[in-house]
Amino acid sequence: MASSLSSNISIILVEPQLGENIGATARAMKNFGFSDLRIVNPRDGWPNEKARSMSVGAIDVIERAQIFTNLNDAIADLGQVYATTSITRSINKNQVYLDEIADEFLTESRVGILFGRESSGLSNNEITRANKVISIRTEKEQVSMNIAHAVAVVCYQLSCKRNVTPQHGFGKVASHSQLEYFFDDLFDKLDKNGFFRVPQKKKQMSMKIRNIFTRIDGLTQVEVQTLMGIVKVLSDKDKEC
Amino acid sequence: MASSLSSNISIILVEPQLGENIGATARAMKNFGFSDLRIVNPRDGWPNEKARSMSVGAIDVIERAQIFTNLNDAIADLGQVYATTSITRSINKNQVYLDEIADEFLTESRVGILFGRESSGLSNNEITRANKVISIRTEKEQVSMNIAHAVAVVCYQLSCKRNVTPQHGFGKVASHSQLEYFFDDLFDKLDKNGFFRVPQKKKQMSMKIRNIFTRIDGLTQVEVQTLMGIVKVLSDKDKEC
Repeated sequence: MASSLSSNISIILVEPQLGENIGATARAMKNFGFSDLRIVNPRDGWPNEKARSMSVGAIDVIERAQIFTNLNDAIADLGQVYATTSITRSINKNQVYLDEIADEFLTESRVGILFGRESSGLSNNEITRANKVISIRTEKEQVSMNIAHAVAVVCYQLSCKRNVTPQHGFGKVASHSQLEYFFDDLFDKLDKNGFFRVPQKKKQMSMKIRNIFTRIDGLTQVEVQTLMGIVKVLSDKDKEC
Repeated sequence: MASSLSSNISIILVEPQLGENIGATARAMKNFGFSDLRIVNPRDGWPNEKARSMSVGAIDVIERAQIFTNLNDAIADLGQVYATTSITRSINKNQVYLDEIADEFLTESRVGILFGRESSGLSNNEITRANKVISIRTEKEQVSMNIAHAVAVVCYQLSCKRNVTPQHGFGKVASHSQLEYFFDDLFDKLDKNGFFRVPQKKKQMSMKIRNIFTRIDGLTQVEVQTLMGIVKVLSDKDKEC
C-alpha cells in the first residue's frame, strides 16, 4: 500500500447512528491501509464502547478518530470532497461510479469521502459541500448498503490503484475553507446588490451557485484568488461613480 | 447486472458463528445482484432471528438460503469452487488475488465461493475441496476482514464486469456558443472596470479565466444564465450610485 494513499484520504462519517458501524468502518479502513477517520455528530456520543469492540484490530483508528460538531469543520483542510450516495439525487453534481473515478484520488491534494447516516444518507445540503458524487454500482432493487460495507468497497477499490503514480502540476488545489471564503464574499456582495430578491429562495439559489463552482475539477488556490478578484472588480462601485 | 452472473455464482458460508454476519452477507449479496446463499452448519442453528433482522431488504435471500450439514453436499452441484483466505496457506493451491481472477467467473459453469468462520476462516481440509484460493489484497498488519465485508468486496468486484451507462438529467448542457456569449460579456465588464490593468497580460489572463469555467463538468444552459445573472448584478452600478 502506498503510504501516500493512506495519508491522503480521509473517511468522514456524517451523523452515524450505530457505534457498531463506526467500529466496523474503522476495521475495513485498516484492512486497506486507511487511518484518518472523522466523525460528525455521532448520535450516541463519543467515545463509544460498541465502536471499540467492533473495530477488531483497528482500535488505533478509533482512538485517533476526530470528532466534529459540523461538516464544514470536518472538511475545512481538505482539497477535494466526495459524497457517496446510493441513489440519483435531483441535484446537478458530477455523479460518477466508484470504478470510474478511482484514479482521480491519487492526486497530491487531501481528499475526503463522505458517508451519510444509516437511515437517510447525506442531505442535499451536505452533498452540495462536495465536489463530486460517488455511487457504487448496485442492483436497482437493493441500493441501500450497510455503511461499513460501503466503506469497505470504496477502500478496496481505491487500494487497487495503489501502484499508479499521480500527475498534477498546476499548483496547490484550493482547500474547502478557501472556497468557503470565496462563497461568503460572493454571497455577501450578491446580497448587497439585491440578487436574492425573493428571500425564501435565497437558500436554494445559494446551493445552486455553490454547485456550479464546486464542480470545477482541481480548482487551485491561485484560481480561487482569480475568482475573488473578478468579484471584487465587478462589484467595485468607486471607479465609475 | 448480468442475470447470468447472479444465477451463476453461489456464496457459501462455512460454519458462520454470528447470525448478524449471515444477515449482513445476504444484504451485501443482494446489493450486487447475487441471491444463492448456502450455509454449512450455522453455529446458532437455523432459522436465525438476528440473520433476518440484519438482512435489511434481503429477507428473500435469507428465506431461500439452503442449509447443509457438510461442505461436500453444499458444493456437489458446482463446477468451480473458490476458497477465500486472508493469509497465505501452507498448501499447494493456486492462490490469486480477487482483482486478478474476476474474469474467470464469467463462465457458464456454476461457481461457488467459500467464506470461512469469523474466528478461524477455512481449514486446510476445506480449502482442499476448492479449485483455487482467492485473496483480497489487504494491509499485512490487518489481514482479517469481517466476513460480510469480504462478501461485499467480492460481490462488488464481480459485479463491476457489467457495463452500465450513468444518466444525467439536469437540463440541457450549455453549448459552446452560449459559453462564448458569457465570456464576451464577462470580459467586456472586466475590461470596463479596469481588471486588465496590464494590456500585455490580457490575453493570458483571459485564458486563465476561461480555463476555470470550462472545467465545470456538464454546465447547463440554466447555470450559464445564473453565472450571467451574477455578473450583471455585481456590475450593476445604477442601484447604489
